[in-house]
Order: sequence, then C-alpha cells, then structure tokens
Amino acid sequence: MKNIPSPSGERLPVEILGATGMVGQHLITRLTEHPWFRIEALKASERSAGKRYGDTVDWALPQPIPRDIAQMEVLACEPSLPGRIALSGLDADIAGPIEEQFAEFGYPVVSNARNHRFDPDVPLLIPEVNRDHLAIIAHQRFAVGCIITNPNCSTVGITMALKPLQDAFGVEAADIVTLQAASGAGNRPGVSSLRLIDNTIPFIAGEEEKIQTEPKKILGTYRDGVIRPAEMAISAQCNRVPVRDGHTACVKVALRTRASLESVMAAFESYGSPLKELELPSAPDHPLIVHHHPAHPQPYFHRDLEDGMAASVGRIQPCGVLDYKFVVLSHNTVRGAAGAAILNAELLVRTALSQAIR
Amino acid sequence: MKNIPSPSGERLPVEILGATGMVGQHLITRLTEHPWFRIEALKASERSAGKRYGDTVDWALPQPIPRDIAQMEVLACEPSLPGRIALSGLDADIAGPIEEQFAEFGYPVVSNARNHRFDPDVPLLIPEVNRDHLAIIAHQRFAVGCIITNPNCSTVGITMALKPLQDAFGVEAADIVTLQAASGAGNRPGVSSLRLIDNTIPFIAGEEEKIQTEPKKILGTYRDGVIRPAEMAISAQCNRVPVRDGHTACVKVALRTRASLESVMAAFESYGSPLKELELPSAPDHPLIVHHHPAHPQPYFHRDLEDGMAASVGRIQPCGVLDYKFVVLSHNTVRGAAGAAILNAELLVRTALSQAIR
Amino acid sequence: MKNIPSPSGERLPVEILGATGMVGQHLITRLTEHPWFRIEALKASERSAGKRYGDTVDWALPQPIPRDIAQMEVLACEPSLPGRIALSGLDADIAGPIEEQFAEFGYPVVSNARNHRFDPDVPLLIPEVNRDHLAIIAHQRFAVGCIITNPNCSTVGITMALKPLQDAFGVEAADIVTLQAASGAGNRPGVSSLRLIDNTIPFIAGEEEKIQTEPKKILGTYRDGVIRPAEMAISAQCNRVPVRDGHTACVKVALRTRASLESVMAAFESYGSPLKELELPSAPDHPLIVHHHPAHPQPYFHRDLEDGMAASVGRIQPCGVLDYKFVVLSHNTVRGAAGAAILNAELLVRTALSQAIR
Amino acid sequence: MKNIPSPSGERLPVEILGATGMVGQHLITRLTEHPWFRIEALKASERSAGKRYGDTVDWALPQPIPRDIAQMEVLACEPSLPGRIALSGLDADIAGPIEEQFAEFGYPVVSNARNHRFDPDVPLLIPEVNRDHLAIIAHQRFAVGCIITNPNCSTVGITMALKPLQDAFGVEAADIVTLQAASGAGNRPGVSSLRLIDNTIPFIAGEEEKIQTEPKKILGTYRDGVIRPAEMAISAQCNRVPVRDGHTACVKVALRTRASLESVMAAFESYGSPLKELELPSAPDHPLIVHHHPAHPQPYFHRDLEDGMAASVGRIQPCGVLDYKFVVLSHNTVRGAAGAAILNAELLVRTALSQAIR
Repeated sequence: MKNIPSPSGERLPVEILGATGMVGQHLITRLTEHPWFRIEALKASERSAGKRYGDTVDWALPQPIPRDIAQMEVLACEPSLPGRIALSGLDADIAGPIEEQFAEFGYPVVSNARNHRFDPDVPLLIPEVNRDHLAIIAHQRFAVGCIITNPNCSTVGITMALKPLQDAFGVEAADIVTLQAASGAGNRPGVSSLRLIDNTIPFIAGEEEKIQTEPKKILGTYRDGVIRPAEMAISAQCNRVPVRDGHTACVKVALRTRASLESVMAAFESYGSPLKELELPSAPDHPLIVHHHPAHPQPYFHRDLEDGMAASVGRIQPCGVLDYKFVVLSHNTVRGAAGAAILNAELLVRTALSQAIR
Repeated sequence: MKNIPSPSGERLPVEILGATGMVGQHLITRLTEHPWFRIEALKASERSAGKRYGDTVDWALPQPIPRDIAQMEVLACEPSLPGRIALSGLDADIAGPIEEQFAEFGYPVVSNARNHRFDPDVPLLIPEVNRDHLAIIAHQRFAVGCIITNPNCSTVGITMALKPLQDAFGVEAADIVTLQAASGAGNRPGVSSLRLIDNTIPFIAGEEEKIQTEPKKILGTYRDGVIRPAEMAISAQCNRVPVRDGHTACVKVALRTRASLESVMAAFESYGSPLKELELPSAPDHPLIVHHHPAHPQPYFHRDLEDGMAASVGRIQPCGVLDYKFVVLSHNTVRGAAGAAILNAELLVRTALSQAIR
Repeated sequence: MKNIPSPSGERLPVEILGATGMVGQHLITRLTEHPWFRIEALKASERSAGKRYGDTVDWALPQPIPRDIAQMEVLACEPSLPGRIALSGLDADIAGPIEEQFAEFGYPVVSNARNHRFDPDVPLLIPEVNRDHLAIIAHQRFAVGCIITNPNCSTVGITMALKPLQDAFGVEAADIVTLQAASGAGNRPGVSSLRLIDNTIPFIAGEEEKIQTEPKKILGTYRDGVIRPAEMAISAQCNRVPVRDGHTACVKVALRTRASLESVMAAFESYGSPLKELELPSAPDHPLIVHHHPAHPQPYFHRDLEDGMAASVGRIQPCGVLDYKFVVLSHNTVRGAAGAAILNAELLVRTALSQAIR
Repeated sequence: MKNIPSPSGERLPVEILGATGMVGQHLITRLTEHPWFRIEALKASERSAGKRYGDTVDWALPQPIPRDIAQMEVLACEPSLPGRIALSGLDADIAGPIEEQFAEFGYPVVSNARNHRFDPDVPLLIPEVNRDHLAIIAHQRFAVGCIITNPNCSTVGITMALKPLQDAFGVEAADIVTLQAASGAGNRPGVSSLRLIDNTIPFIAGEEEKIQTEPKKILGTYRDGVIRPAEMAISAQCNRVPVRDGHTACVKVALRTRASLESVMAAFESYGSPLKELELPSAPDHPLIVHHHPAHPQPYFHRDLEDGMAASVGRIQPCGVLDYKFVVLSHNTVRGAAGAAILNAELLVRTALSQAIR
C-alpha cells in the first residue's frame, strides 16, 4: 500500500461491518496501516456483540491480529455516527437491510455483499474499469449516505481482463470456467476438508449467475443517472479446487472486430494504470500483469503480486471455437473482496466525498 | 471385472511393456485376476531389466503387488514369441519404434502411448464409440502383428460424452477446460508436490493439442481402409489440480441441429452399453452415467464407478454462448489408460483375433 | 467380508443410530452385504426424522448409497422392538442417555461413542485383544439389553500394536504422537479446508486424554465382574493432518523385561488372528501386518488392507530414550469406528447372544 | 530484515553456491535487499553454468526473481576471488570437497550442507544458542578461509526450544516426532505429489540420525579449540506431511532437575534475544515465541513470524512418561536453511571477520 496522505490530511474514521468473517479479517489487516483510514468500530452479529474482538473471532490469517484491534469491543451492527464510512463484509443473507439502514443514517457504505449490486442506482465498481459509474450515487435516495459495491470475487479478475478487449475490439461472447479457492466459501464452517482433499467440486451456489451478469453491468455505460449494461453473452462453469486463495478463470472470447494475436497481446500489455493520477494508496501500479511463461499464472505463485491487487493474465492463444483464449488469476479475498472494497472507499473519498465530508 | 470365459476357453499370454511405470502397474493389477489373460512377461527399460520386479518398481498403488508378479524377473523390451499380446504402457519418448518392432515380430500390440495414434492405418479406439475402426488393422503392413491404440487420458471421457450428442444432433464445436489429476503425469518423478500444494497449474505439455485432435479421429467414419475424421471445432485449456486420480472436463458444445434440453438429457441417458452382446470382461454395464445431483460428478466420489470404467456426466445445462454445457469425469489411469488398453485387447481378442490367433 | 453364515442361519435385524453421520454412513455401507445382519431401521436426530434417507443425508463416501437404503424413511432415535441390535454411531453429545434408553428397552447396543466406555460394567472391546471382557455384560443392570463399546479411532491401532508387546514383555510406558485424518472430525461441518490446506493442527479436543486412558482398560484384566486396568504410563500428542482417512501413530515404548529387536519383531510377526476359530465375517485374517519397507506404512497405501480391518506396523527400531519405537497405521472410520462396531456386534452374536437372542 | 549498516559501512560481495536449488533461491530472495551483502556471483552445477540465471532456474518461490539476478550468468562452482563470502546451498552429495576448495582458496564458507557439520574444527551454529562455538574457526587448517555450518532444517527449531530448558534444568532425554514440510526435499524433483496427496510418509532418509546428533554438538561446550557435545539421549521419528513450508516437532523431555510447569513456561518465555547487542539484520527480536492458544503453533499460520526467523513453541504440558511435552514449529527453508546461513554470515562478519577481512 502506498503511503499517500489523505485528501483531508487526516485519517477518516471507518467502521467494519461483519468484522469477524473472512472479509472482515482481511479488511482489518489491510486497514491497520492505511494512511487514509482508521478503524473506529468493529460491528458484527449478536453472537459477537459485547465481546472482545480477540475472544470472539475465529482468526484465519497468517498475519497476527493487530494488538489494539484484539482489545476492541465488538458492537452490534447498528449505525452510530453519520459521516463515518462503513466497510461491509457482511454475509449476503443479512447485508441487504443493514447496509440500507447505515446509508439512511448517513454513512457512505462500501459493500462487498451481493445484495445491492444490481440496484439501478448503485454502482458496481472496479475503479480501474468503470469509475465513471460512481457518479450514479448522486441519484440515490439517501440524504447524506450512499451505497457502493464491488463485484463477486470471481468477476473482478475476469472483468479486468475483458476490459482492454472490450475497449479495443468489443467482446461479443465469453466462455468461462473457473477454478476457485476454498477461502471464497469463508471460514465458519467453510468447505469441509473431506470435500476438498483429493477432490474438486463442479458447483458453487449462485456463482455462475454472478459471473454471467456482473461483468455486463461493470462494462456498461453510464449516462444521466442510468447504467446500461454491455451487450455480450457470457456462459460460466464454476469449480471449487483445493487451493487456499486465488481464483483462476479459463476464458475464451469472441470479439466484435477481427484482431490479430499481436493486437490482442498489445491490448493487454498496454492496459496501464487508469487510476494513476488519482493517487489511491491501494491502486496497483500494474492492475493487469501479462505472463509469458507457458505455465503461468498460478495461484500460489502469483496471487500476491502488487500486494494482491493485480490480476494476472497468461496463456493468451488463438481459440479454435471462439477467437482467443487466456487464463486470468486474481486473489479472491484481496482483489476480489477486502482490497476491492478499500480501493472503492479510496475512490469515493478522493472523488465524491472530498467536498461532502470535510 | 466380469468373469466371462475367453473365446478360446484359455487365458492368453500377454506381455506388459513398460511394466514399472504407473500404467504398467495398473495393467498388472487389473490383469492379475483377468479371466482371458495371464501375464507371461514383464518388460521394461535397461535400468530395470534383469532385476526382480518387486525390487525395481516404485510401486504406487494401494493394492499390494501380486506376490508372484513381485518375484518375476523384468526382461528387456524386446519381442520374444510371436502371437503373444503386448500391452504397452511405454512412455511416448521410446514407445514408437519398440511397438513397431513388436508388431513386426508378430505381436498384436495394444498401446497406450500417443506415438501411433495418428498413423492412418492404426485405429484410435474407444470400444463403446468406434469399434468398427478396428477393421483398419487389416490394412496394416505387418504380416501377423498389428498396433491398436487408446486415446489420451483426457480424451476418453470427453469423447464418450460427445458420442451420443454427435449421433443425435451432430457436434459442431466444443469448448473444453480440464482439471486433471496428478497421476496423469506419472510417478517418477511426476509433478513435484511443491507445485501442487495450495496450487493449480494452467498448462500440461501437449495436452491441449491431443484433446483438440483425438476426438475427431475417434468420432470419424471408417470405410474401405480409411478413417475420415469428424468435422468439428475443438478448443481446449488444460489445468493440473491437486487430485490424485480422475480428470474433470467442463464442456460447452454447439450442436448442428436444434435440440431441447430434454432431448439432450435423453441422448445421454439412453446411451446404454453398445458392447453388451460382445461380452467383454472389462466393459462397464453403464459406460456413461448421468448425475442429477447439482454438485456431481466429483473425482474422489465418482472416479471408481463401474470399476473405474464409466464416464460420469453431470450439470447438463443450456449454455448462453454455445448450446449446452456439462461436466464429464473419468478415471484417467483406468478408463484413460490401463483399463482402456485392456478393453481394447478384449475387443481385439473377441473380434479380430478369434480366428487369427487360435 | 467373509461370507460366513450367521449362528442362527438368519440375518438379524439391526438399527443404525446416528445413521446420517460419517460413522452411520460407513455402518450402512458395510452392513448392506453383511451375511449376519440386515438393516431394519435408520434412526437419527429430529432434523432428519421423517425424511427419506437419500434426501437428508450428506453422503460422503465414494460407494453410492445403496438404492433401498436411500428410499428408507429416517426414524426418530427411539427404541422400537426389544431384541433388535442397535449399532450406534451417535455423537457423544447425545449418545449417553439414548444408548441407555435402548439398552433398558432390551436392545443390545453396540456403541462407537465415548460416553459409556469407562462405565465399570461396560466392556471397551477390541475382539482380537480383550474379548474375555465381554463377559462383564452379565453384570450390567439391564434386564435384556446391554451396552458394549469400541475404542476411539486412534486407540484401536495403537492398542492392537501394544498387545503382543504387553503379552511378551510387559509395557511399562508409551510415548505416542498421532497424525490423524480429517474424517475423524466428521463431515458436517468437519474441519474447514482453510485449516488443512498447506497446514497441520497440533491439537484435537479430548484426543490425548482418550489415548492416555483407553489402552489401559482394554489391556486390563477381567475377573469376577471387574476390569482392572493395565498399569502403564502413556503420554500422547495429537495432530490433525490433511489426509482423508487413516490415522498414523509414532510410538515409543519402554518394556518391563529386556527384549532383543528380534524378539520384538517376532512378537509382532507371530501375532496371528486370535479370532480365527470364532469365524466372524469382519475379522481380518491378519489383524496386525508388519511392514519391512522403510517408508511404510502410509495412510493412502495401507489403510485399506484386509478391507480396512488390519492395523499396520512398521519402522520397528531400537529407541535411544525408551526401548523400541515403531509406527502404527489403521483406518480410523473402519477399524476405528464402523468396522470395529460391526466386529463387536459379530462377537456379541457369536458368543453372548447365541443363547439369549434365539 | 533490519536495516542496520554493515560494520565496514559497505555491502560485502558474496557468492551463492548452488544458486539454482531451493536454498539458493531463498538465499537470493533474502540477500537482494540485505544491507550488508551484495550478490557478486551465482555458481551452480555444470548443467546451469554459462546460462542466464532466469533461463536455467526452476524458480519455485512466490516472490519474483529479482530482475538483475535473472540476467546474471551462472558460473561454474569454482573459487574466483579470496575474501569473498561463499553462501553454500549445495546438495550434500557434492558440497563436501567444493566447500573445502573454496575455504582453501580463502573464502569464508557459510554452508547449509551437512557434510562438514561434524568436522571437529567446524562450528555447527545457531547464533542465539552457541555463538561462542564460532571461536573454533581459529583452529581450522585454512590460511584465510574458513567453514561454518548451520544445522539441519528440523534441528534448528528443536534445538532453539531445548536451549532454555538445558540452561535452566538440564535436558536428560528428548523424544521427538516431526511433521516435515515438502520443501525440505527440494524442488527438482522433490517429493512426487502422488506421494503426498491424501498421504503422509513416516520416513525421511538420514533425518532421524541428524536430529539425534546435531542438537548435542550445538548444545555442547566449547573450550580451547574443542567442542564437547552435550550429554543427552535423543530419539526421533520423522514424517513427511503435505505442507509446503514449516516443520513441526512434537517433543517430550526428561529434565535433570525437577521443574514446575510454571518454571518451564518461564524458561521459554524469558528466553529473549541473546543477539540483541550484536545488531544483526536477520536476528529476530523474539527468536522463541510462546503460544498460548491450545491449537497453536501451526505451519501455515506461524511459519512466517519474525520474517520466518522465529521458532514457535506451544502446547507446553506435563508429560506422563518423561517430564514435559510441547510442540515446536519453525520455517524449514528460512530459519532452517537460507535464513540460518545468512544469520551465520552476519555473525561471522560482526565478530570474526571485522578484523580479518577489511
């Protein structure tokens, strides 16, 4: 994370909703040293509220719990003070109304849950891809607060890889097969090891649908308060594999205009960093890393590139059925969840909130 | 394995070429109790020749080495007696000329290696799919011997699943992504565990090419000494995953004629056993098993169905890009190697050799 | 399993308590073809009662659910008919009073749970080790029924390996470290795969205590209605490892009398099958298999020997601190649970029940 | 790594011997940013000599190859310039004479190989434990050069944990069982994944012997050019487990004087950092971390503490056979190999070389 001072010169107070879950743990770990934010409150379900965080969390990261965080009391998931930013790692079965309640109370809510992703006035953001969609929050019904969302853990990497192709050639169709890490299913209880030792599972509930819809909204166009989804066909098959972190996607694409292999490679290679001038601490210098080794990218070896915030693309080849095929890898709990939410929060602070909040 | 008496009433002598490798070990394990064959010789490379099998093999199966096999002396890989059947689990880097030498000497050679698969007069056989191709051996240049081959470990299951679709609707194109087990890379040295703990690998040398070509020959038509490959486009992406046995393939197909989901399901369900009347000991009663549980088939749970000789199909759904998508699973070292070779040998004995050999 | 006719010539009705758990699933799989028993009822918790077994079970074995079993209705865990045998795979948190209730009602209860293992009048049985302890059931307070138990999944193999040493030399002390498979923690939820990918866990709740106490009762002496535990010191450290099935134990022993390595080897080698004359279908021909390969026994390769009912011993060496050290492996859900319970039931039928029941 | 300036104020030139192996890769990764050393040459076997490092190495770390390192030409394993430090990650089958040759030529050789560990005039060093042994190099036969060694990857953590007990109470005997990570066997070919999926292996060639001898030399006393080994009995059993990095050891100890659990805990807790005043960049602030969570330490979660240079101790309990038992974890390729060698090099530079080299 880059040590860039915040727009206001101060660290803004944030609250973590769903602080005890996997996403919550990653949010905490990444926010502890964040130059723009300081963790003001940890909020979670009834079961944890009132307890010391260190006593109630089933911590599942190799980085130790920050000492001061372990001492904090977990609070109930209710809004406290308008103007604070809420970073929500809540599970989808409860996130919907709680996030709305926070937004109504005056919180900018940065959500990782799926519940509001398809609300017409809620942006589904990958800052490197569609940061112009953020403007739609002006049309939300909340007086002060707002809700912004990041996509599903698989969608992020795939959409980041589709973006330069969409820009250069248009994407007509995408056939996708994922190999998804166990951490995507959380830690309590998560996937039983009896299901993943010497095994893979060709099904993840709801996942194919998300991959088939979210990229269209993200790659869509924003104008006058309306996001019009991109027109493309997407078909996904999702597998759980015995990997801890890092989702791999095997992608085949049909393009709208003819493109040589060189031009496809060039589109990926020249993607650059569209966020450079915004100076966001979590923005990777190279959001899309192109690999030339024939056996790359691989989850263990490349999920942590650019502090886990880069998507890796490799094995770019012509395809005998559609036009081109390639492999994308991204860190599902960082770029696909906690890191994505924090980058969204940074974008929000840099652009929309700079006036509003201060 | 069914206890069906052999056509001659006697157990025919077979030799195992490449007896110390993974495929050789599986061949031995499956032949020990075989009602038609008895293992007459174990042949392998210089390194092992002259040694007791039990002392030189790096045995990697949970079934113990059969006691009498362990005592046998490993012989050099040279032909001994015309008329014996050679079951070859030789590595592709040496299999080519050795198998030819055996065929010239008068052996029917049943090979698992890739070397002769695309010789125009060599059948690439899946008995349930294209047993009529066997007739082409009449056109081989060998006086008495012959060479027949089985496909690559990934191709088998995929092609078995494409067959009913090809018959009923015609297959125009197939997009394939595989999740392949570690045993496909053999045991000495095989894939280092440092490459497969908490990791997957999006590349297997030569594998995409095999999947993109072999099904066309197998699904092709035979007439007058010529196999004409089926016309279809195939594009494959192959991954190695931390699974011991069992290759999964995620397949999307475009069909030549419109087909309802019901008719596609029906085509799979009604596939039956085309080998029934031949009474082959290794032929599964249900070569294609259709799964209705949304999370099936899975390698650990379904690779051993029908003694490892069935392919499992599941998650049959309409596809938003091509027409339909589904998942195929088959046991790579059984149905995809040793079991396939033995079934080929049985077919050969039942049909072509019944006159010739006795 | 050996196809030995039952003492009565008929298959006795048994009920499975806890039929949906891992042990229940193994019990069902092993009883389906059992020559002495037929499954009369599947009983489980409120959650499952009233449902079709196939609809409520989270089946986690590679063998398919037997078709007729899948159709059976799961019943509540209450006794139905005196004289039936109850095979209990209930979890320890509920097993205690339920098993008593069944025994009071007149069921011989064959339990895998820990609850009654240390009741003074309940035998803790490994038929090959202490079948004379079975006589204690005559002293139980139940009019017709009784309770017999098998030991913890780790204890079984360790105790089977200690038995010949205890008989030949006396065991004064045993230092034990286990590497235990994931299936020991069950399947719902079991151990999260996030805890076992690229990891081991040096703690299993309650396990060290069981290993430190159970062998003493099993190796104890029975006389006049009293089991006097063997006097030996045992110290255990238990680890969970990413293995599906098969518990390994590294054991070091101090013996009461001096013993040469040859005599220790001989004691293991000559252990034989103390159950031979009883002709029990599940009794292994070789309950203790001695391995001479320096890298054996290993879970994947040796857990299934003798249909999963044998314990494997290997790496027998002098020890620089105590007297000898060796490694024991046994299948935790077969020899350590379902198979153990069935063997106990067979022993009960052959010896105690032959009069009582018929 | 702490950014402490080197004694001379300059970065000293070092050569990596065995630069393409796993230890070599770790050495490179950790030296790239080292404040005291700069990599002057990469040396390796014939096979790699003359090639660009990036082209010949089978890189197996998640950190990318440093760009300038990838460009360096690999040189043959021969000495070039006296006074350079050689950090040797050579395999034991060739390390012996090569390391001697370098020492004779005038290199201080810091070796990770086992070959010279028991030479009477070669120190076997863990700087936190026996840095006084370094003085013995004055008695080596080399004019300018010298050889110092670090222990086996399992020995390090175990010995660091035994040290405070030895100091406080004397250790009479230690029973040890290890669970060792796959990286300990290297990467080319390493352990085949077919041996470690759903499996553990109760044997590692030569490992038990190392654990039974090395701690005695390290914990021994140095006087007048002689190291007298500590008197204690050690018995080890070693297992390979499917973990990438991090060796766990389950240890039971008999102490020479009676000790309460509190005093044992206190001995561990108060161990501190004996290297503090030396200001070595790689020395951990807390070389011995005591864990109080009942399921800690675990390889994935704790191997990287203190940049991989700390040993973790947990589950400290009274033992029913010896006196106390506990679990030790350390990172086998960092604290047990590359990091250990670099820390030894730092110690050498700070103490012995400060006069000699400059």
